[in-house]
Amino acid sequence: MIAEILSTGDEIRSGALIDSNSAYIAQMLEAAGVMVQRHHSAGDDDPVLTDMIQNISARADIAIVTGGLGPTSDDITADTAAKAGGVQLVLNPEAQIQVERFFQRIGRTMTASNAKQAYFPEGAGMIENPIGSAPGFHQRIGKCLFFFLPGVPGEMRKMMKESVLPAIRNMQGDDVQESMIHTLSTFGLTESATGEKLSEFPTVFPDIKLGFRAKFPEIQVKFYLRGPDRHVLEKEIALATEWVKHRLGDALFSPAGETMEAVLGKLLTARHNTLAIAESCTGGLISHLITNVPGSSNYLLYSAVTYANSAKIKMLGVSPDTLNQYGAVSEQTVSEMAMGVRSAAGSDYGLATSGIAGPDGGSEDKPVGTVWIGLATSTGVMSRRFVFRFKNRDYNKQIFAMTAMDMLRRELIKP
Amino acid sequence: MIAEILSTGDEIRSGALIDSNSAYIAQMLEAAGVMVQRHHSAGDDDPVLTDMIQNISARADIAIVTGGLGPTSDDITADTAAKAGGVQLVLNPEAQIQVERFFQRIGRTMTASNAKQAYFPEGAGMIENPIGSAPGFHQRIGKCLFFFLPGVPGEMRKMMKESVLPAIRNMQGDDVQESMIHTLSTFGLTESATGEKLSEFPTVFPDIKLGFRAKFPEIQVKFYLRGPDRHVLEKEIALATEWVKHRLGDALFSPAGETMEAVLGKLLTARHNTLAIAESCTGGLISHLITNVPGSSNYLLYSAVTYANSAKIKMLGVSPDTLNQYGAVSEQTVSEMAMGVRSAAGSDYGLATSGIAGPDGGSEDKPVGTVWIGLATSTGVMSRRFVFRFKNRDYNKQIFAMTAMDMLRRELIKP
Repeated sequence: MIAEILSTGDEIRSGALIDSNSAYIAQMLEAAGVMVQRHHSAGDDDPVLTDMIQNISARADIAIVTGGLGPTSDDITADTAAKAGGVQLVLNPEAQIQVERFFQRIGRTMTASNAKQAYFPEGAGMIENPIGSAPGFHQRIGKCLFFFLPGVPGEMRKMMKESVLPAIRNMQGDDVQESMIHTLSTFGLTESATGEKLSEFPTVFPDIKLGFRAKFPEIQVKFYLRGPDRHVLEKEIALATEWVKHRLGDALFSPAGETMEAVLGKLLTARHNTLAIAESCTGGLISHLITNVPGSSNYLLYSAVTYANSAKIKMLGVSPDTLNQYGAVSEQTVSEMAMGVRSAAGSDYGLATSGIAGPDGGSEDKPVGTVWIGLATSTGVMSRRFVFRFKNRDYNKQIFAMTAMDMLRRELIKP
Repeated sequence: MIAEILSTGDEIRSGALIDSNSAYIAQMLEAAGVMVQRHHSAGDDDPVLTDMIQNISARADIAIVTGGLGPTSDDITADTAAKAGGVQLVLNPEAQIQVERFFQRIGRTMTASNAKQAYFPEGAGMIENPIGSAPGFHQRIGKCLFFFLPGVPGEMRKMMKESVLPAIRNMQGDDVQESMIHTLSTFGLTESATGEKLSEFPTVFPDIKLGFRAKFPEIQVKFYLRGPDRHVLEKEIALATEWVKHRLGDALFSPAGETMEAVLGKLLTARHNTLAIAESCTGGLISHLITNVPGSSNYLLYSAVTYANSAKIKMLGVSPDTLNQYGAVSEQTVSEMAMGVRSAAGSDYGLATSGIAGPDGGSEDKPVGTVWIGLATSTGVMSRRFVFRFKNRDYNKQIFAMTAMDMLRRELIKP
């Protein structure tokens, strides 16, 4: 069963409003085993909408249309649906009762323009709107069954769940297809390198469509599956996840699409370990990410953003000689920062960053994008240097923070 | 000039990702005087995309297509564009150089699959991608000039601004209407309260279309103008800005759409003041925002994320008695945190937060959403309590951080 989605309204057409309704509808349809093939949007423009509805009616089996069912002059959806179907608008008695009841319920007088909301294309059936004034309707045009819903997200969602999806389920009979999307999170390989490591995937798992998404700085791997039996799909996902894990190794940090900070939270919690952080160039971003995880107060004891050298000396105990001799962005300084913050907080791990996020402050030796990351543990401290080539401060902060968190993760999963 | 927008990718088709690119593109085109008539989306599906491109080519004057230019097997846009145009894919030498240069710049080896990114439909011209690996291209199909751009929002936006919009402006010739959008940043009033304070705006400035955008936690006020003379529009904007400033008072924190952290950076720099921060519930977010501003190392001396009480005592000198008697989320504690971090860092200002971001940890007295903010200055310390009704940890962190920065801003602009 092939579906298309059409959202209407000048706000969406002009970009004043981001269309989140269509994503919701697509998710619901896909989860119900319906293949969503195309989305469209257009403004409140009679010939354009009529043309779009006609085009859809020639291609799709079902279509969901949102918006334009209200009482004002720019609400023209029922009118264009009638034109596209070659029928007249007629008063729908059931819809009339619903509109009247709505106004009784909220204790307001119904206006003449609200009466318009009970006029549907001839032959259309009402879809109840349990919370708003505008009822929806379903109408067959060409080979396609259209569901017309209001654009107000709360109303649309309720009507999708209570009326549209049950109707679709009825149409499917025994022929229903389950649909699943599964996400894996990776870090450390480029998108193309990830793709190449998985190049044999389509041969091994011909029933899974593979997708990649660069969600900077991580690369997500996605499985799209469809089939009659949910359990079979779940087994397929488990097998494919194992296969990908084997190919990507430690670059795969979550087989279930979690964030790096959530993975760290689970690891630290499971091991009853605590953490302290000393950030220079990342400026608090690591702490912000770590504390986005509920319960992080159980393992994050303390974090210091020490931009100034004086703060590195006073708060972390970095030696002034080290700073003088090697500079702030150096193995020696970041090691002392990591050890200093670990001992100040009395934590199991101390994680430190010192680098140059840009746009200024780089040199030939230490260009913008250079970062030293230090990790102090009960047995010592290890520090590594990375150079990223982004000229963008925001990108650098993000990839520095991710690299530091990944260094801690790799330490925590060591056998 | 009529435009259509096509976004590609299985994530958008299936609803896993909300398509925000199309809204951005529509805004840019509309601001440039181009009428956006239809949006479409489809997955990485060869016959569907080819069909959509052909349909668009028969209707629109220009089209912007996003996504599917990457190196992996699901990136099929160039291929479908070639099919729709009835031409072959050929190696574009200019694009080849750009892809090679990109990999040189980031210091990674170019893979075979990246080479694919330099193949365009015959006759297409390259659009430079200044920040990513995938160049775009423009291609005439039927009566329509297509611009194919990557789906990564940052790259797409830069290419829209630097290449696509100038090309469109050239096509428009002398017939062009200048169009401007001006943004003002406000914080502290709801969107409807902001709207009510500006309700007379359309009467006073009939030539400016007024818009509001909730960019949580700030509310942006937008002016949309169109006319033949840029200088006239600029004068109009200056007058309208003054009028809005007068109506909104201190809630307007930037008459030029800057971020709160950028405004703070300018104020601190102009006054040669320094800052230290002690964050509990905001977990490093304030520091992260402040350090997003280039040059922030000149005024941010130190920031401490002190989740644990032991860290509050040891790093900030908060008295254990205060914590025992009043708790961590209290006027007394946050005042001692603000004074403590100011004196530890030797800064002019000390800003501190202590609150309950949720989802757990609330009580009847101190529900989730409660935050104490303290500001220590050379003359003393002031602390204020706020209660926000979000049940969402992320929203709470954001509005707590914004409220704290706004408290510092109001102190800095005091006459």
